[in-house]
Amino acid sequence: MAYNLLKGKKGIIFGALDANSIAWKTAERVHEEGGTFVLTNAPIAMRMGQINELAEKTGSQIIPADATSTEDLDKLVSQAMEILGGKIDFVLHSIGMSINVRKGRHYTDENYEFTHKGWDVSALSFHRVMQSLFKADAMNEWGSIVALTYMAAQRSFPDYNDMADNKAYLESVARSFGYFFGKEKKVRVNTISQSPTPTTAGQGVKGFDGFISYAEQMSPLGNATALECADYTLTLFSDLTKKVTMQNLFHDGGFSNTGVSQEVMEKFV
Amino acid sequence: MAYNLLKGKKGIIFGALDANSIAWKTAERVHEEGGTFVLTNAPIAMRMGQINELAEKTGSQIIPADATSTEDLDKLVSQAMEILGGKIDFVLHSIGMSINVRKGRHYTDENYEFTHKGWDVSALSFHRVMQSLFKADAMNEWGSIVALTYMAAQRSFPDYNDMADNKAYLESVARSFGYFFGKEKKVRVNTISQSPTPTTAGQGVKGFDGFISYAEQMSPLGNATALECADYTLTLFSDLTKKVTMQNLFHDGGFSNTGVSQEVMEKFV
Amino acid sequence: MAYNLLKGKKGIIFGALDANSIAWKTAERVHEEGGTFVLTNAPIAMRMGQINELAEKTGSQIIPADATSTEDLDKLVSQAMEILGGKIDFVLHSIGMSINVRKGRHYTDENYEFTHKGWDVSALSFHRVMQSLFKADAMNEWGSIVALTYMAAQRSFPDYNDMADNKAYLESVARSFGYFFGKEKKVRVNTISQSPTPTTAGQGVKGFDGFISYAEQMSPLGNATALECADYTLTLFSDLTKKVTMQNLFHDGGFSNTGVSQEVMEKFV
Amino acid sequence: MAYNLLKGKKGIIFGALDANSIAWKTAERVHEEGGTFVLTNAPIAMRMGQINELAEKTGSQIIPADATSTEDLDKLVSQAMEILGGKIDFVLHSIGMSINVRKGRHYTDENYEFTHKGWDVSALSFHRVMQSLFKADAMNEWGSIVALTYMAAQRSFPDYNDMADNKAYLESVARSFGYFFGKEKKVRVNTISQSPTPTTAGQGVKGFDGFISYAEQMSPLGNATALECADYTLTLFSDLTKKVTMQNLFHDGGFSNTGVSQEVMEKFV
Repeated sequence: MAYNLLKGKKGIIFGALDANSIAWKTAERVHEEGGTFVLTNAPIAMRMGQINELAEKTGSQIIPADATSTEDLDKLVSQAMEILGGKIDFVLHSIGMSINVRKGRHYTDENYEFTHKGWDVSALSFHRVMQSLFKADAMNEWGSIVALTYMAAQRSFPDYNDMADNKAYLESVARSFGYFFGKEKKVRVNTISQSPTPTTAGQGVKGFDGFISYAEQMSPLGNATALECADYTLTLFSDLTKKVTMQNLFHDGGFSNTGVSQEVMEKFV
Repeated sequence: MAYNLLKGKKGIIFGALDANSIAWKTAERVHEEGGTFVLTNAPIAMRMGQINELAEKTGSQIIPADATSTEDLDKLVSQAMEILGGKIDFVLHSIGMSINVRKGRHYTDENYEFTHKGWDVSALSFHRVMQSLFKADAMNEWGSIVALTYMAAQRSFPDYNDMADNKAYLESVARSFGYFFGKEKKVRVNTISQSPTPTTAGQGVKGFDGFISYAEQMSPLGNATALECADYTLTLFSDLTKKVTMQNLFHDGGFSNTGVSQEVMEKFV
Repeated sequence: MAYNLLKGKKGIIFGALDANSIAWKTAERVHEEGGTFVLTNAPIAMRMGQINELAEKTGSQIIPADATSTEDLDKLVSQAMEILGGKIDFVLHSIGMSINVRKGRHYTDENYEFTHKGWDVSALSFHRVMQSLFKADAMNEWGSIVALTYMAAQRSFPDYNDMADNKAYLESVARSFGYFFGKEKKVRVNTISQSPTPTTAGQGVKGFDGFISYAEQMSPLGNATALECADYTLTLFSDLTKKVTMQNLFHDGGFSNTGVSQEVMEKFV
Repeated sequence: MAYNLLKGKKGIIFGALDANSIAWKTAERVHEEGGTFVLTNAPIAMRMGQINELAEKTGSQIIPADATSTEDLDKLVSQAMEILGGKIDFVLHSIGMSINVRKGRHYTDENYEFTHKGWDVSALSFHRVMQSLFKADAMNEWGSIVALTYMAAQRSFPDYNDMADNKAYLESVARSFGYFFGKEKKVRVNTISQSPTPTTAGQGVKGFDGFISYAEQMSPLGNATALECADYTLTLFSDLTKKVTMQNLFHDGGFSNTGVSQEVMEKFV
């Protein structure tokens, strides 16, 4: 069902990889709700066949950009405004990658080159995106910037590795930049802390299936899906949430505030 | 602007006193978005002239109910289902009153009779409402229950008195009952922690104007208005937020995550 | 090992029931560290044989007091000062009881008479204690007041019932009263959020053994014992923590910030 | 007053710059309490005249180490064990530096080379220190690791710049590494979130005096001093806090849980 919730709104969506991506679902839902946008991803992460399909379906253009390159991001912002015919109303940052995880390095045995790179891609990139938008004065008043995060920023999950620390940094950037974006541009900045989601990226993490099952049994409403996350993101892009800013918003079926569920307890009787 | 966000949804709205009330604004906005509802308030709090006006405007019926009376609440729930023709999709709890505040008793000199009564009206009433709904199996799956609260539940505000403790209790009830409502009925329960709002009730608090001004200068986006709170509540009643539950959601222009603002700092140079 | 950490300090300890009580262990440890105190408990909760033993061992006097009676508390405070020969330096509040739990009423089927009584005993009593101390100007500067609490105040544990909401209220009282006690008397007020502990009271809760085992496996350092809680409490009574106030301090082997442990995950593979 | 609280305990103290440093005060107090330690700092940050004075006074040796160099840290750990004659019981990490702040770059105009360097020094260094300790199996069971942080990790303070994000990362590292250090070595890891403190480093921040004054007026017990922070750190190094881990502990006179104080409100009447 569509409500025309984003009619006339223009945006940039980072991180649509394939049909499992939250960013992909968000792009589809934004399109249904009347928004227009450009799609962007890292040149090396792009699977052109697939993202072209999304671009066609949603009438969008694709602008490759390395989120660790200020130059690329500055270009992206100016091109997006040109293509969309004006300033930006919404931005989705859905970027994250840990090389320590990929290379199987344990958290107590990090390779710090990997840590640096992962932090730059996953965390600092959010600052870079906002700094490019801010300097170009590219956001409309009452615009909305959202980044996706995970609760490992608050609590330890053994397999989440250095992504936990990257997400903590990212959430802090949302607050820190949110202050200035609010005061000076009337733009809001928030993060959504999403249930573990079987995206193509998520599936790479060790023991992910067991973890999905644990989270499902701990969450009174069950895990939130990628499509539900897209829906929630819509509300944050809409004009109905203008005074929500600098928040980390849990979208997780209640996991975050459940100490233990009956189902989980039953394994310990 | 209306989106038909709540088309076909049925609800109960507690606490619409006059046109300054958040509950009043919410009723108006829910009506615009296609929802239907019954209005309720305590018999002694009702200003019949005014609430009749709201009822007419929104095509609603009024059912007086004392939120400290299980009997009244049970009746309210069954009558609401009868009037609306089925189960309930959304509930707004916007009830709060401190007799210690009204009678000018300082927090360090509470009259515990007053404390008991204020807690029963402001905090326990939320449990009572949900228990009546739960026992009557009155909520539709994916229904949404929202209560209004204030950040004094987390941090001390000297003039907020025992309402701080009542709001902490209320927010806990949202989590505790949210667990069971989620597991057993697929219903979500959340609280919105709203900016100080110049409602008729709020205006009774000592030093309220100065406090509004302080909050305005601390909040990067300024204070959230009653109408904006109504808009935000709509998103929580809608189908776009199905997996948000057991959360306390700050709707405050960023106040909650601002340590100090430039404007406030300038008073300390 | 003793450090003379509380040499010359005088206090009141609520809630020592038997040798499993945290309050009992705290009394023993305070005594070893050079502090003197009066013991108090509700007349109906007292097991005189046992508490007399503790009183003898620690050279303390016992003053029965009902923590829901302002009159009893006022008397307790004045008698304690008389017995101890001056103002109070430390207070431990370790009182809690849910009649809904005892009577087997589920959280969704509360008897509100029971809820009222449990809240009065478990939560409001902390305000009463502090109001009596405050009005009598009974605390020395840099004194320390501690209440015990549990993490159910932040997250839902299905069997914890209305004690969750009571603990949320209690923690709020610590912040609210802590503000005034700090400003006007230079006294600090904190709560310790302790691991589930097999006290005589705790053991009454349904499924408590399974829950202890779950918490043990979730906590990187294992559950904190009653004796360890007593030790931690000493630090908060000592002069080494003068600027810690209005905090809820987790003493739980890391449970509160562990999203999931390896041991727990292994049950979901 | 001394309690022999750390008798026989051995440690490493990072970051003693001059007599205003929290690390300096901590070294003095640890010495008074019977602990022995090595002092370390970055070669370029050392003011040899001054740190030599501290070393003599406390009977300590100085080992220069760049906290961004794994090689330096590995050497430090092995030399410390040699000098102290065994494994380590306590570690204080008090390191932080933002080049963006020093060079006057606004948060919305970061130089990312500076950001990288500041993050490496201020945040990642904590991981590096712990990884070196962990790999060398250098910590005794029930040892304690503490890092100093600031509340800008939770809430925005406009002048705190990228140090806010660095502190958020640091606090996350405490939780993430704390999990593994707890499980595998029975070592606890915590951060102390200290009041703004007029150290030599702190004084470099723009508007720092006004900010100290603001914090003083917001904190019911006033700001915590460097000496008080040293005292609090002792409790975390002692055997009295064995089950406190993965926590961020506010040591701030109540600032963190004060929404507004009477004194601050009076500026807005």
